[in-house]
Amino acid sequence: MESDFDYTQNIVVRTDIKISKGKLSVQIAHAAVSAAEAARNTHREWWSNWLSEGQRKVALKVDHLEDLGRLKAEADRLSLPVALIEDRGLTELPPGTVTCLGIGPAPTGLVDKVTKKLQLL
Amino acid sequence: MESDFDYTQNIVVRTDIKISKGKLSVQIAHAAVSAAEAARNTHREWWSNWLSEGQRKVALKVDHLEDLGRLKAEADRLSLPVALIEDRGLTELPPGTVTCLGIGPAPTGLVDKVTKKLQLL
Repeated sequence: MESDFDYTQNIVVRTDIKISKGKLSVQIAHAAVSAAEAARNTHREWWSNWLSEGQRKVALKVDHLEDLGRLKAEADRLSLPVALIEDRGLTELPPGTVTCLGIGPAPTGLVDKVTKKLQLL
Repeated sequence: MESDFDYTQNIVVRTDIKISKGKLSVQIAHAAVSAAEAARNTHREWWSNWLSEGQRKVALKVDHLEDLGRLKAEADRLSLPVALIEDRGLTELPPGTVTCLGIGPAPTGLVDKVTKKLQLL
């Protein structure tokens, strides 16, 4: 299936915080929009091709906040567009709680270098 | 809380289909990106202001596909940016299954006209 898409966006979620389905969905959507905006500003061709292909997105999970930091550092090292999302803390979580990380849109092979060991959400 | 935000994006999800948490999150993210793109193309000031405010998003639910169609018609009547999302059907759902509807970013008062009776996801 992966081979149908030259570009992908991965969204990596922490599973060590308690958060409702609706709230989690909004955090993931926030990461998707923000990382797409980052790509539009820095890698416009990746962004454009990803939209044309139908915006492949994959939701993945990690157990700890530290994993998100490590993944972000790896993505930064590869100059991939990223967005680390903090919750405003208005409802379920303390203010500033990091919830998820959006990586890409970017070429699938590059994103895979960062996320290939992760499990699907 | 609503009063802090002049602009909002609502994402309305069908609850009458069986879909995993990860898959649902991706569908909602897809709606968020696509409806934001629609706004960027047709109501650039709304889009820009919404981003500046921090991209308020609310996930809501309906019981039936027909409800999504009705909401989309109402949003279209108000000339709001919308994105109706169909799943590719590669994994859990039959191809072309409509999963959710993104409305906005747009002024909160306008979006509320369409979605005010809906419950949070």
